[in-house]
Amino acid sequence: MQDHLPEPEPLSALVNALRRLPGVGVRSARRMAYHLLQHDRAGAEQLSQALSHAVTNLRHCQRCHSFSQSPVCETCLNPKRDSSLLCIVETPADQNMIEASHGYRGLYFVLMGSLKPLEGVGPGDLGFDKLLERVTDGQVQEVILATNFTAEGETTAHYLGEILKSQGLKVTRIARGIPTGSELEYVDAGTIAWAFMERRSS
Amino acid sequence: MQDHLPEPEPLSALVNALRRLPGVGVRSARRMAYHLLQHDRAGAEQLSQALSHAVTNLRHCQRCHSFSQSPVCETCLNPKRDSSLLCIVETPADQNMIEASHGYRGLYFVLMGSLKPLEGVGPGDLGFDKLLERVTDGQVQEVILATNFTAEGETTAHYLGEILKSQGLKVTRIARGIPTGSELEYVDAGTIAWAFMERRSS
Repeated sequence: MQDHLPEPEPLSALVNALRRLPGVGVRSARRMAYHLLQHDRAGAEQLSQALSHAVTNLRHCQRCHSFSQSPVCETCLNPKRDSSLLCIVETPADQNMIEASHGYRGLYFVLMGSLKPLEGVGPGDLGFDKLLERVTDGQVQEVILATNFTAEGETTAHYLGEILKSQGLKVTRIARGIPTGSELEYVDAGTIAWAFMERRSS
Repeated sequence: MQDHLPEPEPLSALVNALRRLPGVGVRSARRMAYHLLQHDRAGAEQLSQALSHAVTNLRHCQRCHSFSQSPVCETCLNPKRDSSLLCIVETPADQNMIEASHGYRGLYFVLMGSLKPLEGVGPGDLGFDKLLERVTDGQVQEVILATNFTAEGETTAHYLGEILKSQGLKVTRIARGIPTGSELEYVDAGTIAWAFMERRSS
């Protein structure tokens, strides 16, 4: 949408800043700006402060690389967690979902992305050096690869698996198969084929 | 998505603040927060400042009710515009689209919404009193209703039309019909029916 109105500068500046959010184009940015200015000025101020507060106070945890207020995050410092298990995920959102499943009580390492050779995201960008340091602390015995089952997540898991096995660590990959509660009729053929290949004795 | 991780407070605060944006749920808010913190801290700071700058510096233009830095906006002060024509729109975005069409050189009044009786948005919320004051300035001769062709926009146009006509003003509605460049085969039946009803001699 071209802009032919002499739009007030603070409004254009706000629309441009909102466009930096992922998935927000110029129309959504405008809708958001109008909404905040017309109906939720308190929300705009809250967001302004939350952004500046987060940028100032959040850093990466020295151990798991996720966001943290302190040098080492609460999860990494929790003595109740099993420090012999280290689960590698792509994002804090993935970590959240795993926590919500209540199926894991070990520790984490968050890559904050996945290998994307075509976009120039390599091992250095994902903190693989930090990870190698982390896994050789003498406590970690098993590394569980929980990157996504996408092409990029699989590449990352494969690459990491080779490196970690060469360090003498036990490396596992979370299971791929039919989702709980789903009917075979509606599951894609690739998933069914994998579920057969990775069948287990019951 | 339930949250079972001891998430750092500045991160939760940012996610909650982002959820106040229209159309942003908890997953999008998280994605936005991670993106800003991981890849675009400069963008986060820019957005923080733009929000606070906009909230502090933008008010409603005294004449057209749109957003403005000064008591009366540049459009309303522009001597080249035809002050005998006043176009009523729902939002500044609609006003922008009309400007982009280069088909109108009069002035505007922005309702910042439409009548929504079921949601409790009445004439008072849309500044109808201000509008009545505006149209009786002795210069306005024709009021063009350019609210949307939705149920709410139509209700608003009808209601405003009655009030404005009772003031002795000429009131018109922008034309409804087949969009330029479209093929009848792909136009909905309601629009075609209207295009027939409102046909004009050529």
